[in-house]
Amino acid sequence: MGLIVQKFGGTSVGTPERIRQVAKRIAKRHSEGHPLVVVVSAMGHTTDELIALAQQVSDHPAHREMDMLLSAGERISMALLSMALGDIKVPALSLTGSQSGIITDQSHRRARIRRILGDRIRSALAEKKVVIVAGFQGVSETKEITTLGRGGSDTSAVALATALGAERCEIFTDVNGVYSADPRVVPSAILWEKIPHDLMVELATRGAGVLHPRCVELAKQHQIQLCVKNTLDPNESVGTVLIQRQTGDSSLGMEEFGIVGVTADKGKLFIRVKLTRSTVLGSVWDRSAEAHLSLIAPVFSNHDVSFYSERDGESDWKKLLHDLTTEGFVQSYEIVSDVVPLSIIGDRFSQDGRALHEIIEVLSQAHIPVDSGSSSALAVTLGVSIRHVDDAVRALHAEFLES
Amino acid sequence: MGLIVQKFGGTSVGTPERIRQVAKRIAKRHSEGHPLVVVVSAMGHTTDELIALAQQVSDHPAHREMDMLLSAGERISMALLSMALGDIKVPALSLTGSQSGIITDQSHRRARIRRILGDRIRSALAEKKVVIVAGFQGVSETKEITTLGRGGSDTSAVALATALGAERCEIFTDVNGVYSADPRVVPSAILWEKIPHDLMVELATRGAGVLHPRCVELAKQHQIQLCVKNTLDPNESVGTVLIQRQTGDSSLGMEEFGIVGVTADKGKLFIRVKLTRSTVLGSVWDRSAEAHLSLIAPVFSNHDVSFYSERDGESDWKKLLHDLTTEGFVQSYEIVSDVVPLSIIGDRFSQDGRALHEIIEVLSQAHIPVDSGSSSALAVTLGVSIRHVDDAVRALHAEFLES
Repeated sequence: MGLIVQKFGGTSVGTPERIRQVAKRIAKRHSEGHPLVVVVSAMGHTTDELIALAQQVSDHPAHREMDMLLSAGERISMALLSMALGDIKVPALSLTGSQSGIITDQSHRRARIRRILGDRIRSALAEKKVVIVAGFQGVSETKEITTLGRGGSDTSAVALATALGAERCEIFTDVNGVYSADPRVVPSAILWEKIPHDLMVELATRGAGVLHPRCVELAKQHQIQLCVKNTLDPNESVGTVLIQRQTGDSSLGMEEFGIVGVTADKGKLFIRVKLTRSTVLGSVWDRSAEAHLSLIAPVFSNHDVSFYSERDGESDWKKLLHDLTTEGFVQSYEIVSDVVPLSIIGDRFSQDGRALHEIIEVLSQAHIPVDSGSSSALAVTLGVSIRHVDDAVRALHAEFLES
Repeated sequence: MGLIVQKFGGTSVGTPERIRQVAKRIAKRHSEGHPLVVVVSAMGHTTDELIALAQQVSDHPAHREMDMLLSAGERISMALLSMALGDIKVPALSLTGSQSGIITDQSHRRARIRRILGDRIRSALAEKKVVIVAGFQGVSETKEITTLGRGGSDTSAVALATALGAERCEIFTDVNGVYSADPRVVPSAILWEKIPHDLMVELATRGAGVLHPRCVELAKQHQIQLCVKNTLDPNESVGTVLIQRQTGDSSLGMEEFGIVGVTADKGKLFIRVKLTRSTVLGSVWDRSAEAHLSLIAPVFSNHDVSFYSERDGESDWKKLLHDLTTEGFVQSYEIVSDVVPLSIIGDRFSQDGRALHEIIEVLSQAHIPVDSGSSSALAVTLGVSIRHVDDAVRALHAEFLES
């Protein structure tokens, strides 16, 4: 039987009891004869607690030391999971990112995987052991411990599935799969049985927390069968499978999915910048990239540019925009922390010219003001006040997904 | 200036505030021009917390996975200390046991150091960096993470001092140095400015928690200048220095120190065994060694043997003695958890035949019953009820060290 890579996130291994439950689930799959590689995140809030400790000893913790610190988190969860498996007589071996041969570049805190050696994984699999691998971490060519940044453990799992030629990669999380909206906001949200990679990337980029876009893109690129399952639901048939689009001769041969989701991302904020002249836009782009600040769904109009970015990058943006003002690139700027992006994701959705109009019409009827809007090939994104955004999601979901 | 190896224990790095204090102390020494290698233990109760987690996921955690788990503890403290140094502009680099090239045998949870490569330590020192090394851990020839067991971090420090040719090794702890008794029990206890290695080994073996005997023996063997200092006392002249005995032509040339300490070890318990025949004693010894159970201050008399052992080994002893009874080696046994060893340590002390008599006399006058007694070259050990042992220490200290 083919190799399966499973990944369990921080909530799934958040307590000793949950670790024992995960061990039982692994044991069942192991008994079916599948070779298994299991990627784990740090337990629950361990990473946040370690970051808080770092902030208490240093105002500017060195990134190299931060990676050393944070990598302790998965070391704890993987050793505990391996012990729990041992306790129910499943032979298991835990391996760090370094021991697994997950070789990355040298960018601490946001390393990219270059290649995976995997020798120790392969020899443990040959001995019929379940191999537990620390997610989120690797080692550089200069033997420094690195971490992969946001979505790191999902990325570790897909990269391992690729390197080891796995039959599929299963991401276990605390929801049943990919929904058309956050079920906590929209109780009638639809659970998708299958969804194509490109729409999943859009959903993930625009606030659906279930998968990180980086891991979806990697799965698409290497044609890894990726699925999302609920750790707490033992029914293996529940979940979402990511599918490859049919790439026929003509675009008509492609399956169309219509609208697949309405997302809101409260972890983002809105930024408006008035440039001194339109020719400096490239400089602003370069400088934000140097500062590792993201620009999401940007809209330009003459000397003005607006976009979303990570809420936790607010102070870095303030500093950068202040510097750019001093240097004469920026005339004025506004960081609008009250406005968050709401997105409607669908299949070639924006090619319909009426889409943006219809969406704004629905929100207008619900008396929800829209700050700004933009559209790309597979999504329309609107700026909505954080106070109204849940109502806006419900209104749009009712109109486009429930009718 | 010569290289100094410093070691800070778990209490010394127990909170972010203490880590910042330790960083300041290191910075001061660094500014004097000494190359520094700093060995750290896990923060406060981290190791105990990790062990508790392991016990919640597994009834018999695999030793290999336990080492993987526990090694996370020093990884956290060393990264934090390195960050704290960075924050006060002291260039620092943290290295795991593995990265430091601390090569051990393959005995998980009680590994012995075989050799130290130290290449990355040397190159970081050449770049004028303070090198922070994880204590208590190493890596085997087969690249498995190992831990050194009790006294591991002290041993790491002395082994590094040896391998790197350090001028001296400073062990920082939460007391001012080596005392003639536990100052919490005997407020008038004497702080020794210097003490010879052999007496320190006896003190350490018999309950003085300040240093582990293994690290003292290693320091003696490799002639490393070892001293004990208080993390919280900035006065560098306070502390205890371990000294080499003058090894002159005759024993008369050796310095004599008299009685240096009275210790009680509440972490031990007393065991009495009646053998089926005296010839099976070797078998009992071998089997306890196989089970990694210690036999301290053993006394034989015909078919009877009595000794002390670690209190936390009680269930293992019960199992072993039960097996030895079934197999016909042991006739009966008694584990006396109420009786703990009290020792008087001194210079060629037991050669004076009256010593044991005098000691029992002092305790008799204080109405403290003595369960049993034995003497070795540098110590007399008595079995005393745990309820009376503090009074017994005070009475003996008053008689032999305060008069």
